[in-house]
Amino acid sequence: MEHQSGLARGIEAIKGKLFQMGALAGTMIDAAITTVTQRDADPAGRMPEYEEECDRSQLEIDEMALGLMATQQPVAKDLRFLVGALKINGELERIGDLAVNISESAGHLLARPPLRQAAVIPQMGRIAREMVRQAIRAFVTGDVLAAQEVISTDDQVDQLKRQTLAELLAHMNAAPDAAEASLSLLLITRSIERIADHATYVAQDVIYMIQGRDVRHPGLRQ
Amino acid sequence: MEHQSGLARGIEAIKGKLFQMGALAGTMIDAAITTVTQRDADPAGRMPEYEEECDRSQLEIDEMALGLMATQQPVAKDLRFLVGALKINGELERIGDLAVNISESAGHLLARPPLRQAAVIPQMGRIAREMVRQAIRAFVTGDVLAAQEVISTDDQVDQLKRQTLAELLAHMNAAPDAAEASLSLLLITRSIERIADHATYVAQDVIYMIQGRDVRHPGLRQ
Repeated sequence: MEHQSGLARGIEAIKGKLFQMGALAGTMIDAAITTVTQRDADPAGRMPEYEEECDRSQLEIDEMALGLMATQQPVAKDLRFLVGALKINGELERIGDLAVNISESAGHLLARPPLRQAAVIPQMGRIAREMVRQAIRAFVTGDVLAAQEVISTDDQVDQLKRQTLAELLAHMNAAPDAAEASLSLLLITRSIERIADHATYVAQDVIYMIQGRDVRHPGLRQ
Repeated sequence: MEHQSGLARGIEAIKGKLFQMGALAGTMIDAAITTVTQRDADPAGRMPEYEEECDRSQLEIDEMALGLMATQQPVAKDLRFLVGALKINGELERIGDLAVNISESAGHLLARPPLRQAAVIPQMGRIAREMVRQAIRAFVTGDVLAAQEVISTDDQVDQLKRQTLAELLAHMNAAPDAAEASLSLLLITRSIERIADHATYVAQDVIYMIQGRDVRHPGLRQ
């Protein structure tokens, strides 16, 4: 049996915790999106409970990573892992917050007649949810290709959001009574877009952790 | 003359860099807000240049902090400083991005007749800008009280945003032709609100750095 140091054990424990937190963030996205698409507030009923669990995980993971940094003097790849874990932890917590935002906007949406522009939500939600899942998988398995795929998927979500924005603006002009519902739907598409952004940040952190190569702001490095 | 270790010198250098980056983020907010309030695209003309500088600073500061972690084995307060610096660095970069978003939305706004609901922007912008300034000052001087003040100011910005949202919704109903301009203004208030959120995160990081006390999610710790 291979000897595992306290540092290696700690890193495995953090991996497990972040994987769980990623799964929780995914559950929160699913609940929020289902509320919108099924026009049913029930799936979001456990959201406050999920949010609390997500916040608690964030504090725990930060504490674990900082404890290892303070006591184990990690260097090179291990240090990059711990710094990456701190960053990914922050991203997942904000993804959870965005799912909460979506379920709140959904509340306003359900109080009004349905909008046909909401038809884009299942697709947008599915892509963003899959980006989060794949970014976490890339983190746990150390898969750079999977991380790069997440980054390149972000454009699809941006494009769906832009297209929906144009449709909703036209609809606001044509049907001023639907302004409030249109706006709620617009905020939902923005929250989904931001979830995709945070998944992209996770993927960038994964590449940095594995390769020690910073892939943010590529324009600066031609 | 007091002896300064490589770690202490490195920490001072990072402080200086983050202070500069905070000042740059402030300049970007000013330029974006002025574009909205004066209905003049000129102040935002240098935004691409600012954004590049902001991105470059982010990469440099991350590299400095990671280099010190890897070579100097910091513990306790120094380690918390470096982790805090990494987080604050990320917040400042996103504040810069939000200023860019505001100046982009302002472009749409200037193409339409003025809205009286824009009257709230100078006040909202001033508060958010001041929160960023004070959070960075709290970081550089290690002032916990200043950091707490930033956190408690966040509510003011949230309230101004909520109030403007209600006014804009009423206006969209009454004047459907103004839907596009109303929406641009709404997105600007949301971006300002998010700048205030990121200033709040910086202030929370400052308290953690100084006191080793995590003030996020206070509800979890009664």
